[in-house]
Amino acid sequence: MKKYVAELVGTFWLVLGGCGSAVLAAGVADVGIGWAGVSAAFGLTVLTMAYAIGHISGCHLNPAVSIGLWMGGRFSAKEIGPYIGAQVVGGLLAAGTLYLIVSGQKDFDGVGGFASNGYGEHSPQGYGLLSGFVTEVVMTAIFLIIILGATDGRAPKGFAPIAIGLGLTLIHLISIPVTNTSVNPARSTAVAVFAGGAALSQLWMFWIAPIAGGLLGAIVYRFLGSPDEEPNIEGDPV
Amino acid sequence: MKKYVAELVGTFWLVLGGCGSAVLAAGVADVGIGWAGVSAAFGLTVLTMAYAIGHISGCHLNPAVSIGLWMGGRFSAKEIGPYIGAQVVGGLLAAGTLYLIVSGQKDFDGVGGFASNGYGEHSPQGYGLLSGFVTEVVMTAIFLIIILGATDGRAPKGFAPIAIGLGLTLIHLISIPVTNTSVNPARSTAVAVFAGGAALSQLWMFWIAPIAGGLLGAIVYRFLGSPDEEPNIEGDPV
Amino acid sequence: MKKYVAELVGTFWLVLGGCGSAVLAAGVADVGIGWAGVSAAFGLTVLTMAYAIGHISGCHLNPAVSIGLWMGGRFSAKEIGPYIGAQVVGGLLAAGTLYLIVSGQKDFDGVGGFASNGYGEHSPQGYGLLSGFVTEVVMTAIFLIIILGATDGRAPKGFAPIAIGLGLTLIHLISIPVTNTSVNPARSTAVAVFAGGAALSQLWMFWIAPIAGGLLGAIVYRFLGSPDEEPNIEGDPV
Amino acid sequence: MKKYVAELVGTFWLVLGGCGSAVLAAGVADVGIGWAGVSAAFGLTVLTMAYAIGHISGCHLNPAVSIGLWMGGRFSAKEIGPYIGAQVVGGLLAAGTLYLIVSGQKDFDGVGGFASNGYGEHSPQGYGLLSGFVTEVVMTAIFLIIILGATDGRAPKGFAPIAIGLGLTLIHLISIPVTNTSVNPARSTAVAVFAGGAALSQLWMFWIAPIAGGLLGAIVYRFLGSPDEEPNIEGDPV
Repeated sequence: MKKYVAELVGTFWLVLGGCGSAVLAAGVADVGIGWAGVSAAFGLTVLTMAYAIGHISGCHLNPAVSIGLWMGGRFSAKEIGPYIGAQVVGGLLAAGTLYLIVSGQKDFDGVGGFASNGYGEHSPQGYGLLSGFVTEVVMTAIFLIIILGATDGRAPKGFAPIAIGLGLTLIHLISIPVTNTSVNPARSTAVAVFAGGAALSQLWMFWIAPIAGGLLGAIVYRFLGSPDEEPNIEGDPV
Repeated sequence: MKKYVAELVGTFWLVLGGCGSAVLAAGVADVGIGWAGVSAAFGLTVLTMAYAIGHISGCHLNPAVSIGLWMGGRFSAKEIGPYIGAQVVGGLLAAGTLYLIVSGQKDFDGVGGFASNGYGEHSPQGYGLLSGFVTEVVMTAIFLIIILGATDGRAPKGFAPIAIGLGLTLIHLISIPVTNTSVNPARSTAVAVFAGGAALSQLWMFWIAPIAGGLLGAIVYRFLGSPDEEPNIEGDPV
Repeated sequence: MKKYVAELVGTFWLVLGGCGSAVLAAGVADVGIGWAGVSAAFGLTVLTMAYAIGHISGCHLNPAVSIGLWMGGRFSAKEIGPYIGAQVVGGLLAAGTLYLIVSGQKDFDGVGGFASNGYGEHSPQGYGLLSGFVTEVVMTAIFLIIILGATDGRAPKGFAPIAIGLGLTLIHLISIPVTNTSVNPARSTAVAVFAGGAALSQLWMFWIAPIAGGLLGAIVYRFLGSPDEEPNIEGDPV
Repeated sequence: MKKYVAELVGTFWLVLGGCGSAVLAAGVADVGIGWAGVSAAFGLTVLTMAYAIGHISGCHLNPAVSIGLWMGGRFSAKEIGPYIGAQVVGGLLAAGTLYLIVSGQKDFDGVGGFASNGYGEHSPQGYGLLSGFVTEVVMTAIFLIIILGATDGRAPKGFAPIAIGLGLTLIHLISIPVTNTSVNPARSTAVAVFAGGAALSQLWMFWIAPIAGGLLGAIVYRFLGSPDEEPNIEGDPV
């Protein structure tokens, strides 16, 4: 039970911190944090929660991660449903909290895009469906390779939250212009419910592409991370 | 005795570094560090001091953290008073030092807001009392969850200062536009004394909301972090 | 075999993440990530991959690093060829993927510089051949000193990916204005193939200078890192 | 011998990376890295070198640090001279290298301030002598507290380079507007020789104030870091 609450709290923080920084602080003139600040914020939600609750739930905070970890042989199939449920509920609670904060602004007149994801006309810089789909698949695939690799028994202990959190920062530094960066269906769903319109009608892609990418990345790492057929008998220092 | 001096020195650094970077460097044209730089600065004061004095005082630097740690079962009640006293004195010394530096600027004509916290007209972007209160409560609650989780015996050893420091950076990336970010009554008090006016008359909120948030976060982590009623007999890999 | 695929995947990520962030996100008005964001992105590609695949291939992702590690006594000569081959192929696949994404933008009319490296007229800020050559040699030399030092048996365990990744970030913070920063012939080649023109005709320098620098840095670290002739019999605390 | 060469190489990197990023990349329109990027660069020179050569020389890279470590009981008096010599020579070589790079720019017409330190008219934002002196003393004092605390036997092992490097980043985030941030006489000297004029005539302050601050910080940490007179017999969890 506690692991589900931990996923809920963690995904609450991911959506409040990541989407909140985008909605509240990104575009303010002169001192605003810009896309680089938003990228830092998304990554730090994962870094901080991975240290805070990693020992409770594993800190997935993302349906594509839970499914990818299952494909990677690190997560049991019967937990996928409850984890995704907790992630979506946590994200929605965060979007509601953010709505409450934003609506108390003196010039408030609607949430606008509310940090939702999109393609075509709703891409921040006008990238089409194919560009967006490829971007989301590739970004999520590499994200899973980072997650599976950094938590591999042969990787240094204790550093995985840094690699994974800063990996999410990096993904945002690249792909905010294309789709506003999802790689996380729970994050996309949470704000789409409040943004409505295209954010909802395009939401299907931000479930399919990240999950496809998560499966792809897990398959690649299963190959990469498994022992070689022949032992490296020369003992080269690589 | 030394732990109180350590808290004083640490909170001096938090206020001088965080509020100092805001007052001195944030808004300079073209090369100024903006809110992202101020966010980095606040977080790095905690990261650096946690490695420097964590083994002396625990490095709270914040009344809401001391009270939250008490609620979380990690700090003794009778130390709360002296710790808060040392934090407030350290913060005031930093604000005085910052005043001395700022007043030597060629165009100096008063401290202005002096990085103080506020709501309504005194919110950086005009967010009302309810928005500010919710923001401060939620941010401090999550801050305590990060602190209690990252210092849990099951979390990786040695990384807590990174998680906690960068957690404070993240909190600022989100909430500077709303309240100029407190989550720390000692920090708010230190600069309010020099800024005067609304910073003083609104100061009550930056004691009540962070402390309420700290208590809330500690209660949530007491639930999350305690052992499950039933052992996880299936040994799933989460 | 798997180590070659790991190098291919890792270099794919270095070029997609580093050059991708530059092409997609650097120059967007108001919220763009600028050169500081691109610097963060390049470094984080290495940090994340070093934790993800360091235990599989050593995570070189760069011909100048493979050759420098050989000179530093850490890599076998007969592996240099296959590693460089895998790195170049991975980079080219990334550049192709980036082309696919970029060409789906509504205003697309050619790739422009495509984050390629150059000197003289093709230097971002107009630095000449000598400035560019010196910069690339020195930056790569220090990069190898960082790599060899941080992975020395006497350095703290597990931190090398942080030192090396953030070292690459630092190299970009300094030298993007001069050559757009290569220090990596595979990265330069990958985008030059798509940018064409001067990026191709100047490509020779971004093989010669980084490799010369890598060799130089390795020679310096062989001297620095070897034991002193006489033991430090006074046991001073340095 | 090798430790002196290591200090030379390390200080070369500190000046080339920190001052180089300031001169080359800070002020470029739209995509320039600004003071936040320069702050990151200075800190990362120390972080990277501390992992690369910390096991060879201790990685001081700064006369005020060497003197402060002696006052803190961590460094032998007879090594102070050779260390400072190596640091100054390394800094000068870096400034010369930077001059070579900069002078190859198409619009080059003199080095200007060349990232030198100053007060009064030569402060970036016009802060007077007293402001500058207090800033340099306090910043260097806290820097030594961070260094001595993070390398204390009771602090987590291996993390000191992160705390110290990011501490230098933080110091720059605060104090670039005041003095362009020295806290390091070798860094100030290296670029003053090339900038000439006020950079040279004001150079005395950037030896006296950082060294005074280093001594002060070391004295504070000797008090803070020594064992308490009475053992903490209650075993409270702080």
